[in-house]
Amino acid sequence: MSKGEKLPVDQIRAGRLGGERDEGLLRYLSSMDADRWIADADVLVDIAHMVMLHRQGIVDTKSAQAILRILLQFHDKGVPEDAFSPVYEDIHAGIEAVLMKKIGADAGGRMHTARSRNDEVATCLRIRLREEILGELQNLVVLRETLLGTAAVHLHTVMPGFTHLQHAQPTTLAHHLLGYEQAFSRDFARLRDAYCRVNASPLGAAAFASTGFGISRSTTADLLGFDAVLENSMDAVATRDYAIETLAAQVNCMVNASRFCEELILWSSPLVRFVQLDDRYCSSSSIMPQKKNPDIAELLRGKSGTITGALMSAIGIMKALPQSYNRDMQELSPHLWKGCGIVSESLPLLSGMIGTAVFYTERMREEAGRGYSTATELADVLVRDYDLPFRQAHTIVGRAVQKGTIDLATLEGAARETGGISLVKKGLTDTAIQDALDPVQSVAVRAAFGGPSPAIAGESLENARQRLAEDRTTVARRIASLTQAWEQLLQEARGILA
Amino acid sequence: MSKGEKLPVDQIRAGRLGGERDEGLLRYLSSMDADRWIADADVLVDIAHMVMLHRQGIVDTKSAQAILRILLQFHDKGVPEDAFSPVYEDIHAGIEAVLMKKIGADAGGRMHTARSRNDEVATCLRIRLREEILGELQNLVVLRETLLGTAAVHLHTVMPGFTHLQHAQPTTLAHHLLGYEQAFSRDFARLRDAYCRVNASPLGAAAFASTGFGISRSTTADLLGFDAVLENSMDAVATRDYAIETLAAQVNCMVNASRFCEELILWSSPLVRFVQLDDRYCSSSSIMPQKKNPDIAELLRGKSGTITGALMSAIGIMKALPQSYNRDMQELSPHLWKGCGIVSESLPLLSGMIGTAVFYTERMREEAGRGYSTATELADVLVRDYDLPFRQAHTIVGRAVQKGTIDLATLEGAARETGGISLVKKGLTDTAIQDALDPVQSVAVRAAFGGPSPAIAGESLENARQRLAEDRTTVARRIASLTQAWEQLLQEARGILA
Amino acid sequence: MSKGEKLPVDQIRAGRLGGERDEGLLRYLSSMDADRWIADADVLVDIAHMVMLHRQGIVDTKSAQAILRILLQFHDKGVPEDAFSPVYEDIHAGIEAVLMKKIGADAGGRMHTARSRNDEVATCLRIRLREEILGELQNLVVLRETLLGTAAVHLHTVMPGFTHLQHAQPTTLAHHLLGYEQAFSRDFARLRDAYCRVNASPLGAAAFASTGFGISRSTTADLLGFDAVLENSMDAVATRDYAIETLAAQVNCMVNASRFCEELILWSSPLVRFVQLDDRYCSSSSIMPQKKNPDIAELLRGKSGTITGALMSAIGIMKALPQSYNRDMQELSPHLWKGCGIVSESLPLLSGMIGTAVFYTERMREEAGRGYSTATELADVLVRDYDLPFRQAHTIVGRAVQKGTIDLATLEGAARETGGISLVKKGLTDTAIQDALDPVQSVAVRAAFGGPSPAIAGESLENARQRLAEDRTTVARRIASLTQAWEQLLQEARGILA
Amino acid sequence: MSKGEKLPVDQIRAGRLGGERDEGLLRYLSSMDADRWIADADVLVDIAHMVMLHRQGIVDTKSAQAILRILLQFHDKGVPEDAFSPVYEDIHAGIEAVLMKKIGADAGGRMHTARSRNDEVATCLRIRLREEILGELQNLVVLRETLLGTAAVHLHTVMPGFTHLQHAQPTTLAHHLLGYEQAFSRDFARLRDAYCRVNASPLGAAAFASTGFGISRSTTADLLGFDAVLENSMDAVATRDYAIETLAAQVNCMVNASRFCEELILWSSPLVRFVQLDDRYCSSSSIMPQKKNPDIAELLRGKSGTITGALMSAIGIMKALPQSYNRDMQELSPHLWKGCGIVSESLPLLSGMIGTAVFYTERMREEAGRGYSTATELADVLVRDYDLPFRQAHTIVGRAVQKGTIDLATLEGAARETGGISLVKKGLTDTAIQDALDPVQSVAVRAAFGGPSPAIAGESLENARQRLAEDRTTVARRIASLTQAWEQLLQEARGILA
Repeated sequence: MSKGEKLPVDQIRAGRLGGERDEGLLRYLSSMDADRWIADADVLVDIAHMVMLHRQGIVDTKSAQAILRILLQFHDKGVPEDAFSPVYEDIHAGIEAVLMKKIGADAGGRMHTARSRNDEVATCLRIRLREEILGELQNLVVLRETLLGTAAVHLHTVMPGFTHLQHAQPTTLAHHLLGYEQAFSRDFARLRDAYCRVNASPLGAAAFASTGFGISRSTTADLLGFDAVLENSMDAVATRDYAIETLAAQVNCMVNASRFCEELILWSSPLVRFVQLDDRYCSSSSIMPQKKNPDIAELLRGKSGTITGALMSAIGIMKALPQSYNRDMQELSPHLWKGCGIVSESLPLLSGMIGTAVFYTERMREEAGRGYSTATELADVLVRDYDLPFRQAHTIVGRAVQKGTIDLATLEGAARETGGISLVKKGLTDTAIQDALDPVQSVAVRAAFGGPSPAIAGESLENARQRLAEDRTTVARRIASLTQAWEQLLQEARGILA
Repeated sequence: MSKGEKLPVDQIRAGRLGGERDEGLLRYLSSMDADRWIADADVLVDIAHMVMLHRQGIVDTKSAQAILRILLQFHDKGVPEDAFSPVYEDIHAGIEAVLMKKIGADAGGRMHTARSRNDEVATCLRIRLREEILGELQNLVVLRETLLGTAAVHLHTVMPGFTHLQHAQPTTLAHHLLGYEQAFSRDFARLRDAYCRVNASPLGAAAFASTGFGISRSTTADLLGFDAVLENSMDAVATRDYAIETLAAQVNCMVNASRFCEELILWSSPLVRFVQLDDRYCSSSSIMPQKKNPDIAELLRGKSGTITGALMSAIGIMKALPQSYNRDMQELSPHLWKGCGIVSESLPLLSGMIGTAVFYTERMREEAGRGYSTATELADVLVRDYDLPFRQAHTIVGRAVQKGTIDLATLEGAARETGGISLVKKGLTDTAIQDALDPVQSVAVRAAFGGPSPAIAGESLENARQRLAEDRTTVARRIASLTQAWEQLLQEARGILA
Repeated sequence: MSKGEKLPVDQIRAGRLGGERDEGLLRYLSSMDADRWIADADVLVDIAHMVMLHRQGIVDTKSAQAILRILLQFHDKGVPEDAFSPVYEDIHAGIEAVLMKKIGADAGGRMHTARSRNDEVATCLRIRLREEILGELQNLVVLRETLLGTAAVHLHTVMPGFTHLQHAQPTTLAHHLLGYEQAFSRDFARLRDAYCRVNASPLGAAAFASTGFGISRSTTADLLGFDAVLENSMDAVATRDYAIETLAAQVNCMVNASRFCEELILWSSPLVRFVQLDDRYCSSSSIMPQKKNPDIAELLRGKSGTITGALMSAIGIMKALPQSYNRDMQELSPHLWKGCGIVSESLPLLSGMIGTAVFYTERMREEAGRGYSTATELADVLVRDYDLPFRQAHTIVGRAVQKGTIDLATLEGAARETGGISLVKKGLTDTAIQDALDPVQSVAVRAAFGGPSPAIAGESLENARQRLAEDRTTVARRIASLTQAWEQLLQEARGILA
Repeated sequence: MSKGEKLPVDQIRAGRLGGERDEGLLRYLSSMDADRWIADADVLVDIAHMVMLHRQGIVDTKSAQAILRILLQFHDKGVPEDAFSPVYEDIHAGIEAVLMKKIGADAGGRMHTARSRNDEVATCLRIRLREEILGELQNLVVLRETLLGTAAVHLHTVMPGFTHLQHAQPTTLAHHLLGYEQAFSRDFARLRDAYCRVNASPLGAAAFASTGFGISRSTTADLLGFDAVLENSMDAVATRDYAIETLAAQVNCMVNASRFCEELILWSSPLVRFVQLDDRYCSSSSIMPQKKNPDIAELLRGKSGTITGALMSAIGIMKALPQSYNRDMQELSPHLWKGCGIVSESLPLLSGMIGTAVFYTERMREEAGRGYSTATELADVLVRDYDLPFRQAHTIVGRAVQKGTIDLATLEGAARETGGISLVKKGLTDTAIQDALDPVQSVAVRAAFGGPSPAIAGESLENARQRLAEDRTTVARRIASLTQAWEQLLQEARGILA
C-alpha cells in the first residue's frame, strides 16, 4: 500500500467502530501474509457455503447466482490482488468487500449470512492443512522408496555401527538405512492419523453458537470433502489442537531427518570419508578455495530447530486461552505454515541427497574392523562354544582390550586374572579368535529378526516394501477423494448459474 | 550412600575401565531416580528374556531356574533397595549385580546373554509408558463422564458465550461443557493412537545389531504383551519418537485443561461469580483472612507450562543425535515420567473440581443478556423476516450499539444513516425487537447441528455418550490383554521352576 | 526470478564445485529474505574493510577508489535489487558479484581480501542488532513515560488489587501502573547490558583463523563504532550467544507486556468494565454487530508466545554445534529479526493503548470494597489496637467471612469460637470496624516504602522519573556515538576518492 | 506421611475454609520438594523480619525473644523435619506452625505480622538464587583457569580448524581453547549482571500492597545483604523476570558447554582420535566389552536440552499472568532449581574432563595438513606475492582442488582455464607452493589480533588471565559482602535474646 493512498472502507467495522488507524497498526492486525496460504481455500469455502444456503432456501437464486459467478471467477483466475489490501484485517473480509464492490451490497451482502469468520477461517485452515499433509505423506513415500532402493544395493556393504559415536559392532549400510525407513514410516503414520482429526468440518459453527438459520452442516462438509462434521460449535471454532498435533508430528519427522543429516555431515568430513555428497547439495567458501561443505544437510539440521520453536510458539499461544475465539489464535497460523513449508521443502532434498550420494564402501569396510568392534562376537563365542557365563566372557574380553590387543595370550592372561580360569584348557585357539573377530562373519551371524545379516535384512527390506505399498495406496485414495469432492462442488455451483 | 562406605563392584566396568569416581560424578551418571519408574518393568523383561533363552536352549535349565527363582522374588516382593545403590549406573546393572551376589557369577552371569541395556531399557520404557497411557485414558473417560453428567443437568442453563472475553452471544452451560468433552475426546484419540506406536517390542535388538544367539524376538514380544516386534534392530534402540509423540499428546491435553482452568479461575472471581469451587480445591492466604483462592486450577494451568518445557527438553535432546544409542537419551526419560505424572495427577483433580462445583445459574442468566449479546440474533431477524442483506443488517445493528441502545428509534435512525432505508416501513416493531433480544429465545433458535439449543444439545449429549462408551471399551480391552499376558508370563516362568 | 532466466555466475562456487541447482534448492540455501535486514549494514562493513585495507597498504589506491566509489553509491542509493538475486547464496556474495560486474574482476576481486563471509555476516548482525536494540530502548523509554504520566493522574484512584484473580486488598491505579514501570525498567536494563556484549567487532576473524595479511582489527572496529574487538577469532565467528541473550531479554519484556495486555483484555470485558480502549485498538466482528474486541492486546499476548518460540528455535539451532561456523547458523538470524520486529511493533502499540485508554474510576472504586478486600486491614487493626497476635486476628476475620458478613456480632462469635476470647471486652466497636473496612482508608495507611498510599506512591513516581531520565541519557549517548562513527567512516572513504 | 496419621492443623486455612483434602490433592498443592532449597533462607528471612519488627516496636521484646530463640535454633541445627510435613502447603506455613507449637499461639502468632507469604517466598528465592549464582561464577572461574592452563601448554600444538565439520585451515589447540574461554567469560558476565537484578529485596511488600504497620524495608534489606529494596510492592511480589533472566543466562552457558562436549565426543571417537578422556568420565557397555564411551560429555550435552525446557516452562508459566500473585508461580521455582543444579554439577565435570584429558598432538598435526586445509594461505600468497585479485586466486586454487591435487602444473592449468593467465610467468615456483601449504607456516603467519599464531595467542592468553583475575575479585567481593551481612544479622538477633 503506497503512502497516502485512500483506503477502501472496512465493512465489518463500519457500523460499530470509529478511529483512524495508521499503517503500523493495520500491519499488526493483519493476517494477510499468512492468509495467502488460505485464499484459494477460502473461495472454495465461500462457494460451498453459498451452494448450501441456496439449497436450503436461505438465499434466493438470483443473489446466489450473482455471488457464485464472481466466486467461480476467483476460483478459476485466482483471488484478485485488491482483496489482499492491508486495509482488510484478513482475506475473508477482503474477498467479501471486493465481491460487494463488483455485484453491489444487496446481493453481495448476503454471502456472509449464517456464518462468521471464526468458522470460516477454521475451515480454511483445515482444508489447506489437508493438502499440506497429503503432500508431506507423498514426500515421505518418496524418501522411503529412496532409502529402500539404496538399501537394496548395500545389503553386503559392511560398515561400523556406532553407539556413543564409538565403534560398537559391525553392521551394514543397508541395515542402517532400513532403520531410518522404519522411523520415517512412523512419521507417515503420525501424519496420517493427524489427517483424520484435521479432516472434520467446523463450518456452520458461526461465531461459536451456530446460527438460527436453517443451515445444513453435513451438506457443506460433504461438498468440501470432509469425513465428518466437527460437532460442538464452540469447540469447532475454539480448538487448534489439530495444529499442535500436526506440528508435533512434523517436529518428530524433522528430528529423524536431523539425525540422518548429522550423520551425512559427519560421514562426508575428511575425518570419516564414508560418503561423497553430490556437488549440488554442497557449497564452497568465500575465502577457503578447497571447501566443499554439506550445507543442505546443515540447513536441514538447523530447520529442525526452527520447527521446534514453531511448535513451542503454537503451544504458548493456546495455553490458558478462554473460550471461544481469541485474536491470539491468528498469531498461530503462520507457525503452522512455517512448519509445513519446512517439511515439504526438506524431505525432497533429503531424498535427493541420499539418492545421489556416493558411498565409499571400501572405507566403510576398513573401519568396520577397527576399534575392537567385533569384541562382542568374541565374547559371544566364548559363551556359545566354551560355555562361559556371558558376564565373565565380557569381563575377560574387556580386560584384553584394556591391555591393547586381542590374541590368545592376552585373553588367557585376562581369564586367569579376572576369573582364575584357563581358556586354553577349554580349547580356545588363535584360529577361533580370528574367525570371531572377522567383521563380515560377525555381521553374517547377526541373524535375529530385524538384524543386519544380509539374508535377514533382505527379508526386512521386503517387509518394508509391502508396508510402503499400502501407505502409497492410502495417500492415493485420500487424494482421489478430495479431487472428486472438488469436481462435484464446482459442478453444483456451475449448475446454479446455468 | 553414606560417605566412606565401600562401594560394591560395578561388573560392567570391571574389565575395561579404571579410575576412581566420586559421588558427584556417580550422581551425574546415575539414572536411578528415574529408574524407580521402570524397576518393576525391568524384572518382567528379565523374566521374559530368561524364559525365551531357556525355550531356545541358549541357557540351561539349572541356570534358568536359579535366575528365575530370584526374579520371581523380586516380582513378588519388589526390587530390593540395594539394587538402587548409586554405584550402579542404572537399575539394569543393579538388578544383575544383586542377582549375581545371590546365586553366584556362573549362573547369574548368564542372564545378560544375547541382549544389551540398550534394548532392555527401551523395552522397559515402553512397558511402563503403556501403563501410564492406559491410566490417562481412564482418567479421560472419567473426566468426560463428569462433563457429560454436568451438561445433562444444564441443558437449559443460559449463560453468555464469549469471544475475545467480550459477551458475544448467549449459549448454555451444557453447550460450553460439551465443547470441552469433544476436545478431551480428541486427546483420548491421540493417546490411543500413540499407544499403538508405543506397544511394539524392541527386545532382542541388543546393542543395535541384534545378536548371533538363536533368540526369538516374537516370543519375548508375546510374553510381554506387545502387539508387534519393532523390526529393525538399530531403529529399535535408537528411536525415542514415541516419547516425543506421547509428550506432545499430553501437552495438547494439558493445554485443553489449562483453558478450562483459566475459565474456572475467571468464573470464580468476585468479578464474575459464575461458579463456587469446593473448598478442598481452594486455599486461603497467610495475610488476607477473607481469601478463597482457586489454587488447584492455577497450579494445573502452571503445570501446562511445565509439561510444555518437558516436551521441549525431549525434542532438544534427540535433535541431531547420530545412530544408534547415545547417553544423552538417558536424560530424556525423566521428562517422560514428569509428563505422565502431571497428566495423571491433574485430570482427576479437574474432574473433581467440575463434579463438586456449584454453578450460579442465576448470575449466568443475568449476564447472558448483557453487553448486547443478542445483537446477532436481531441482525439475523432483519435478514430472515425483513429480507435485508446480512452485511447491511449487521451494520445497522452495530451503529445502534455504538449509539448506546437498541430500540426501534435507534435502529430506524441507524438504518437511514448507514443504508438510507426505513425499517419501520418494512414493518419492524418494538415487539419483534424485544423478542429477538431475549437470550432464551436466542439460544432456542440456535438449532443447527452441534448448536446450543437445548434440543440439539441433548442430541449432542447422546452422541457423546455413545462415543464415550466405545472408548471405555477400548481401554478395558487393552487392560485385559495386558493382564492376560502377565499371567501367562508368570505361569510359564513358574513352570520352569517346578 | 522468472523461470528460464539465465542465472548470473556464482563466483564463490565457480572454481570448486559443479552441479546444476534448481530453484527449490537455491531457495532452501538462500538467506536473502533475512539478508534484507543487513544489506545496508553490509555496505558499511565493506567500506570500513576497504578503508582499512587501503590504510594498511594491502590494497592499492586505484583499486580502493574503484571499489569505494561503488560502495558509496550503494550506501547513498541503496543496495541494487540484482544483488538480492536468489542465485547468490547471500547478500555478501550478491554485493561482491554486482560490484565486480561494474568495475571488473581485477579491482573488484580485491574487496574480499583478508576476510571471509563468516566474519562479515557476524559483523553485520551485530551492527543491525545494535540499531534494533537502541530502537527498543527508545520504545521502552516512551512506554515508561506513558505509564508514569498516567500514574500521575491516578494517585488517588482507588481500585481493587488482586491475587489469584480474587479481590485481595485495595490499591490505586497509580500503584498498579508504577509496578509495570518498574518491570519495564528492568527490561531496559537487560537490553542495555546485552547491547554491551553485542557491540564488539568480529571483523578480521576471517573464516575463524584470522588472516596472514597485515590487517588492523582495531581500525575497523573504530570505524564501525564498536566499543571493542571480539578477540579470539574462532569465537568471533562461532558464537551467537548475544543473539540468544537479546532474544531472551526481548522475551522477558514481551512476557511483561503480555501480563499487562491480559489485564487490559480482562478490564475491558463487560464483566469488569474498568477500562475502555480506544476504538483504533479494537476490532468488531463479522457476525456480531455489537462487538468491540481488544484485538491489539490479544495479538500482543499471542506474539509473546511467538517470540518465545523464536528463542527456543535459536537455542535449539546452536546446541551442540561444533566449532567454528556451521551453516545451521544461517537459520538463526531470521528468528532474531522476528524477535526484534515483534518488540519494536508491540511496545508503541502498548504505549498507545495506555495513553488513550479511558479508565472507569467509579467502577474501580466500587469494586475496591467488594469481596471483603479490606479484611486484612481489619485484622491488622485487631493486632495494632487490640494486641491480638496476627495469626489469631487472621483466623477470627477469616471465620467471619466464612459466615458471610463482617460486623461486631459475627466477629465476636468468631473470636469466641476460634480463640475463646471476647473482642467486645477488649473494646472493639462497630465504628472501629467500619473505619477499618473503608477502602480509601485502607490504601492511605499502606505507607511503607513502595506502597500504594498516595503520598508514598507520589515519591515512587518521582524516583521513577529520575531513573528514567538517566536511562534516556544513556540511549541518547549511544545513538550520538554511532552517528559520529558513521560520519567519520564516510568522510574517510570519500577522502580516498578525492 | 504414613497413611492414617492424624494431620496437624493448617493454621492458614483454619478460619476461612473447610473441606477434607486427600493426599493426592495435598501433594499437588505442596511445594515442599522445591522448598527444601529455600528452607534455610526462610529462617534467615524470619530472623531479619523479627529483628526489624522489634526495632520498629511493632512486636514486644518478650514475644521477639521467644520467636528468635526458636529461629536461631532452626538456623543452627537446621529446620526440623516436621516443618516439611505435606499438610502444610509450603515451608513458610510449616515453620510458622512448628514454631507456634513450641512457644504457643500468642507469641508465635506474631511472627507473621506485617508480611505475607508472597513477599516472603520472593525474598527466599532471591537469597537462595544469589548463592547459586555465586557458586556458578566460581565454577566458571575454575573452568576458565583450566582452559587457560591447558592452552598455555598447547600454543604450538597445530591442529585442523573446521567449518561445516570440514577441514578449513590449520589452527592450534591453544587457539581453540582460548575461544571457549572467551565464550565462558561472557557467560560469567551475564550471570554477574543477572545477580545485580536478583539482589534486591521484595520483603515488606506483603501480599502486594505493602502494609499499614510501620515497617522499615531498608532495614530488612540491609540485614539480608541486599544491595537495594525492590520498590513497588506489587511488582516486588509479582515479578519472576529475574528467574527467566537467570535461566536464560544458564542456558547460554550450557549451550557453550554442549558445543565443547560435542567436540570432545567427536574427538574421542576412533574415527578422529584427537583426545583420550580419563576413564572416570567414561562408561563401558553391558554387552560390548571393548567400549569406552564418553558418557559424561553426552549427559552434559543432553542436560543442555533439559535446561532449555526448564526455561521454556518458566516462560510459559509467567506469560499472560495478571497481577499480582497467582499460584502458577509456585510451579516455576523447581525449574529454577533444576537449572541451577544442572549448571553447578556440569561445569566442574567439564573442568575435570579438560584438565585430565590426554590430547594426541601427533594425530592433530597429521590431520592439520589434510583436506587441502592450507589452500587459503596459498591463495593469499598468490595475492600478496603475485598481485592477483583475491577472488581470482580463490578460483584458481579451488579449481586445482577440484582436479584433485595442488602443484605447479595443476595451478598453472587452472589459472589458464579460469583466468587466462600464467602463474609460471608471474614467477610462481614449486617451492613457494610447498611453503604456503605447510600447516605450521600457515599458522605462524596468522598473526592478526586474536589469531592462532603462537606469539599472538600468547598475548591473548595474557589478556584473558587479566580479565579472569578481575572476575575472580568480583566474586570474592560479593561473597565477602554476604558473609558479613549474615554475621551482623545473627549478632543483632542474639543481642535481642541477651
